[in-house]
Amino acid sequence: MGLLDRITTPADLRRLTPAQVDELADEVREFLVQSVSRTGGHLGPNLGVVELTIAMHRVFESPRDTMVFDTGHQAYVHKLLTGRQDFSALRKRGGLSGYPSRGESEHDVVENSHASTALSWADGIAKANVVQGRTDRHVVAVIGDGALTGGMAWEALNNIAEGHDRRLVIVVNDNGRSYAPTMGGLAFHLDTLRTTRGYESFLSWGKRALHRTGMPGRFAYEWLHGLKKGLKDVVAPQGMFEDLGIKYTGPIDGHDTAAVEVALRRAKAFGGPVIVHVMTEKGRGYSPAEQDVADRFHAVGQIHPETGLPLAPSRFGWTSVFADEMVRIGRRRPDVVAITAAMLAPVGLAPFAAEFPTRTFDVGIAEQHAATSAAGMAFAGLHPVVAVYATFLNRAFDQVLMDVALHRAGVTFVLDRAGITGDDGASHNGMWDMAMLSVVPGLRLAAPRDEPTLREALRAAVDVDDAPTVVRYPKGSLVDPIPALETVDGVDVLARVGEPGDPEVLVVGVGSMVPTALQTADLLAAHGLRVTVVDPRWVLPVPSALVKLAGEHAHVVTIEDGLVDGGVGAMLAQRSREAGVATPVQSIGIPLGFLDHASREQIVDGLRLRPQDIARDVLTALAGASR
Amino acid sequence: MGLLDRITTPADLRRLTPAQVDELADEVREFLVQSVSRTGGHLGPNLGVVELTIAMHRVFESPRDTMVFDTGHQAYVHKLLTGRQDFSALRKRGGLSGYPSRGESEHDVVENSHASTALSWADGIAKANVVQGRTDRHVVAVIGDGALTGGMAWEALNNIAEGHDRRLVIVVNDNGRSYAPTMGGLAFHLDTLRTTRGYESFLSWGKRALHRTGMPGRFAYEWLHGLKKGLKDVVAPQGMFEDLGIKYTGPIDGHDTAAVEVALRRAKAFGGPVIVHVMTEKGRGYSPAEQDVADRFHAVGQIHPETGLPLAPSRFGWTSVFADEMVRIGRRRPDVVAITAAMLAPVGLAPFAAEFPTRTFDVGIAEQHAATSAAGMAFAGLHPVVAVYATFLNRAFDQVLMDVALHRAGVTFVLDRAGITGDDGASHNGMWDMAMLSVVPGLRLAAPRDEPTLREALRAAVDVDDAPTVVRYPKGSLVDPIPALETVDGVDVLARVGEPGDPEVLVVGVGSMVPTALQTADLLAAHGLRVTVVDPRWVLPVPSALVKLAGEHAHVVTIEDGLVDGGVGAMLAQRSREAGVATPVQSIGIPLGFLDHASREQIVDGLRLRPQDIARDVLTALAGASR
Repeated sequence: MGLLDRITTPADLRRLTPAQVDELADEVREFLVQSVSRTGGHLGPNLGVVELTIAMHRVFESPRDTMVFDTGHQAYVHKLLTGRQDFSALRKRGGLSGYPSRGESEHDVVENSHASTALSWADGIAKANVVQGRTDRHVVAVIGDGALTGGMAWEALNNIAEGHDRRLVIVVNDNGRSYAPTMGGLAFHLDTLRTTRGYESFLSWGKRALHRTGMPGRFAYEWLHGLKKGLKDVVAPQGMFEDLGIKYTGPIDGHDTAAVEVALRRAKAFGGPVIVHVMTEKGRGYSPAEQDVADRFHAVGQIHPETGLPLAPSRFGWTSVFADEMVRIGRRRPDVVAITAAMLAPVGLAPFAAEFPTRTFDVGIAEQHAATSAAGMAFAGLHPVVAVYATFLNRAFDQVLMDVALHRAGVTFVLDRAGITGDDGASHNGMWDMAMLSVVPGLRLAAPRDEPTLREALRAAVDVDDAPTVVRYPKGSLVDPIPALETVDGVDVLARVGEPGDPEVLVVGVGSMVPTALQTADLLAAHGLRVTVVDPRWVLPVPSALVKLAGEHAHVVTIEDGLVDGGVGAMLAQRSREAGVATPVQSIGIPLGFLDHASREQIVDGLRLRPQDIARDVLTALAGASR
Repeated sequence: MGLLDRITTPADLRRLTPAQVDELADEVREFLVQSVSRTGGHLGPNLGVVELTIAMHRVFESPRDTMVFDTGHQAYVHKLLTGRQDFSALRKRGGLSGYPSRGESEHDVVENSHASTALSWADGIAKANVVQGRTDRHVVAVIGDGALTGGMAWEALNNIAEGHDRRLVIVVNDNGRSYAPTMGGLAFHLDTLRTTRGYESFLSWGKRALHRTGMPGRFAYEWLHGLKKGLKDVVAPQGMFEDLGIKYTGPIDGHDTAAVEVALRRAKAFGGPVIVHVMTEKGRGYSPAEQDVADRFHAVGQIHPETGLPLAPSRFGWTSVFADEMVRIGRRRPDVVAITAAMLAPVGLAPFAAEFPTRTFDVGIAEQHAATSAAGMAFAGLHPVVAVYATFLNRAFDQVLMDVALHRAGVTFVLDRAGITGDDGASHNGMWDMAMLSVVPGLRLAAPRDEPTLREALRAAVDVDDAPTVVRYPKGSLVDPIPALETVDGVDVLARVGEPGDPEVLVVGVGSMVPTALQTADLLAAHGLRVTVVDPRWVLPVPSALVKLAGEHAHVVTIEDGLVDGGVGAMLAQRSREAGVATPVQSIGIPLGFLDHASREQIVDGLRLRPQDIARDVLTALAGASR
C-alpha cells in the first residue's frame, strides 16, 4: 500500500517527512500517467503541478483557507489529495469532473474553466474575509503564465494591489506555455525574471561546477539548496508586479517541494498580497509528454501509458477541413489574416501559420483583443479570420457588438466546438453562441452541415467586407456529404418524404443537426405525414425564404444544438410573427440551463434530442393543435 | 477673426508659430467653455486635451496616420481641428456626435465609447500596416489612465509589446482620474512615475526657487523648460511598461505644447511601439471645472458659462431612489456590499460609500472583475450589489454566465440607464441587457415601473442568495407611483379598460414603458376593445402567471424599451408556445440595429414606440388576424 492510498484529507499530508513528500510526488505522477492515459484528460498540466499542489496543501489549510485554480484542468492532484482517488470514470457521467466541482468536495470553489478568472475570485473572497473580520484565513490562487495574458487577470491584479490588508497568495505557475508557448510582452517579462536576473544561469553554472568537484550527490544537493535559498533573496526581481505594489517572490523551482514550501510559508506570513513565481515543467516526469514540443500533452485522448501515443486515432474532421480551406483562401487572398487566442493548433490554424507566418497573430488568451484588433485590421484593409472555441467567444460579446458590428467591419469568426461538447463540463459547451450573436445587428452566421457546405461558408464569409460573419461547427468528425435536392433562395431542400399531397411539416435542420432532422422526417413520414427537410446554412439573420417556406407549411420544427431561447427557431418564430405568418414553430434544442459533464451522446439522450424523441414530441404537438 | 476660424484641416496647424499655437489653445478652450455650456456634453475631458490634440495634429498627418481616441468623448478638440466647428447641435439629431463618427469625417475611426478599446484598435491597424507594407504610416492611440485599468488595455499592451516593427504611439493621457480618481495598483504605479521619481517634486522646487530669484517670467519659463527637457531623459522611469518591452517616455507636461510636440516627434521617429506619458488636468483653464473635486465636469448638462452651475436642475430620479434604498439596505444587512466600475457617483453609490466605506469597492473600469469578484464575495458569505450602466454590463456577459450564474452566486446587478439613452449615441444605449441576460440560467430580472416597485425590487433582489438578480431602470426622472388594482401570482394588474365582456387584449408593460402601456390601452379601449394592462415587475424568467394570463386573452402586446429579439416579449412568446398557449404575442420594442444619437423622445418617435403608434400597430395586427 503506497503513501497516496493513506492520504484521505490534506491534514494527512502535513504529517509526512520531506522524504515521504518526494515519494508521494512520485506516486502521484505514476497514478496520473496510468490513470489519465486510460480515461483521457489533461495530463501535462497536472504532471507539472504535483509538487506545487502537495506543498500548497501542507502550508495552507483547505477549506478554511480557500484554494482557487485557474482553468481548473490543473486540479487533478488537488482532487487526489482531498479524498478523490477514483479516477476510473474521469470526465464521464457519474465520475469525477475534469475540473473542480462544488458537488464533489468542500475543497473546490471555482467550476468555470474559462481562463484568467482565478485572481478575481480570489480578490472577492479575500475582500469578503476582511469585511467579515476573518483575518486569519488565506486565499491562494494558482494561475498559469498563459492565463495572465487575459485582461481579467490584469483587472484583478490592479485591484489586489490595493488591498494591503488582504491575505492573498498568487501562485504564478509559469511553464512558459499556456496551451502553447505564451505570447506577448508578459512572456518577455517573465523570461526576463527567469533568465536575465541570473538566477537560472547561476543555478545551471552551480550544477556544472558541483559536478566537476565530484561532491557526493546528497551534499551537493544540500549545498545547492542552501545557496538557492540565500540567492533568491538577492536576485528577487523588482519587476512589473512590484511596480503595481504587489510583493513578488521568485522564481522558485516548482519541482523542489522544500523550496516551494519555504516560499509559500513566507507568503502566508506576509499578511498582504504576494506573488509566488513558480517555474514548472508541463508534462514533467513523463518522457513522451516532455518530448512533445507542440503542447506538452495539454489534453490527451486515451493514450498508451508508455509511448504516449493515442490508442485511437484522433479525428478532427471539422477542424481539419477548416485548416485546409484556410490555407487555400490564404493563397488566393493576400488580405486574409488569421487570429487565434492561444489556440493555434487546436483550432486548426497551424498549417496557415506555417505558410503565412506574418499573417498569423496569436494574441494570447485574449478574446476581447482578438475581436477588437480584428476590427482595426478590417478598417485598415485586411480581412481577419478569428478562430476560437465557441464558448470562448462569450468573452468578447461587447467587442463583437460594439467594435466589429457597429463599425461594419468585415471580420470572420470561426467557432469550433460549437454546440454540445460534453466531457469538458458546463463551461465548455458552445451552446450560447447563436443566442448571443442573434442580437448583433448585421451579423451573418452560417452553420454548415458537412464538408462542402463548410468550405462554401468559409469562402462566402471572407467575401463579406461590411459586416461580421460567423461560421460555427461542432467538435468531432464529419458526416458524409449530404446533397441538396434543390436550393430555393439560398435554402437547401434536402428531402421531401411521406405521402404526396399538401405540405404539412417543415423540418429545419441547423448545422450538425441536419442528420437528426432527416431521420426525424423519416419517422414522421412513417406516421403518415408529408415532411419537407431544409437547411438554410446561413441561419442568422433568418432568411426571408425560410419565413416564406414556414408560411407554406402547417407546422414548423427547428432542430439546433444551441439554446432554444434566442436561437434560430426562436428567431424564425419571431420573424414569422412579424411577417404575419401564423404557422406554429416548434423549436427543438437545448433548454436554458447548464449541462453536467457526460458524453455528447448521453447529453443528447438526456435532452431528448434523438430523432425518436423529437418525432414523438412533434406528434404530440400536432395532436394537441388538432384538438 | 480668430486663429481657430482659419483652421479647416490639420495641415493648417503645421503652419502656426509656437506663439500662435498657444493662442490657438486659448481660443479652443474659450470655444469649448462657451459652446458646451450651452449644449451640454463632456467639457472637462476636452479642456484637458487641448494642447495635446493640437500637438498630435502638428506631428502626425491624419488620416494617413491614424488617430484613435479611447472613450471618444475626448475628441471635441480633434473635431474642431478637422473641419468641424459647428457645435451648436452637439449630441442632437442632425448635429455633431459627442464621439468620433466615421460619417462625419475621414479623420474619425472608432465610434464605440466603451472604455479601453483604443489600444486594441491601434494594434490591429498597426499590424495591418505592416502586413500591407505601409511602413511609413503611424498609429496614435490616446488612452486615459482610467481606461488602462480595463482588461482589454492589458491584452493590447501585451500584444503591442511584441511588435517591434509596428509604428504605434500610445499617448497615456494621465489626469489621475478616469471618471473619478483612478483606483488600484496602476494608479499607484503612475503615481510612482509621477512623484517618487522626483520629476514633479523637482519641478515644484524649481518653480519656487525661480520665484525667489526674481527672474523675469519669460526667462524663468525658458530656463525651466530647458531643464525639463534635460531632466526627462534623466528621470525617465524604467517602470512596468518597459518591463513589458514597450519603450516609455515621460512624464510630459500635457499643457506645454512644445514639450508634447518634442515627445511625439521622438516617438514618431522611434520606429516601434512607444508610450508617451502625458500629464493633463481635466477641466484645465476653466475655474468652475478645476474646483469641482468630484469628477471635474466629466459630463455636464447645460451650465452657466461663468459659474459652472447647471442652468436646469439635474433630475436623477431613478438613481437617487436607488442611492437611498441602498443605504437603507446597508444599515439592515451588514453582509451587503457595493461594487462599482469607476462610476461611484454617477450610479448613485456615493451615499452608501460615505456610510460604509469598507463595504464599498471601486474596481476601476473593469466590469469583468466586478462580476467575478462579486461571485467570490458571494461564495464567502456576502451579498454584493454591482451597480453599472446597463450598456457596460455587456463587457461581463461571460462572467455573469460562468462565474455568477453557474455557481449560483447571490449577486445583484443594478443597471442604470437601461433602454434608450439617446444623446450619447449608439454604444451608450442600454438596449441589449434583457436579450443578453434572458439566456443566463437561473437569473432573475426586475424592471420596476416607479419608486415603490424599485425599492421593492431592490429589497427582494438582495434576499436571493442562490442566483444572480438584476434590477434595471432608465436614465431620467421617475413618474408618479402607479398603483396596482390587484396582484395575481406576482403579476400586477394595473388597469382593465374598455367595453365589459370577454377579455380581449392583454397589454404587458415592462418597467419604464408601463405609462406607455396604460396610454396604449386607453387608445385601444376607445376603439371598442376590452384591454387588461399588467406589469409582471420580475420579467425574467417569464412568470408562469403571465403565460396563463396570455392564454386567457385573444391577443397579447408586450411593450419594452429593449431589443424585441430575445426580449421579454420574445421570451413570453416562446414560453407560451412551449405551454401550448396559442394566443399571438405582438412584441413591441427596439428593432435589431444601432441607434444614431438624438434625444430620447426623437428616438422613441422614430421607432414608433409612442402610444398612438403602438395602438395603430395593434389594431392593424388584429385586423389582419380577423381576415
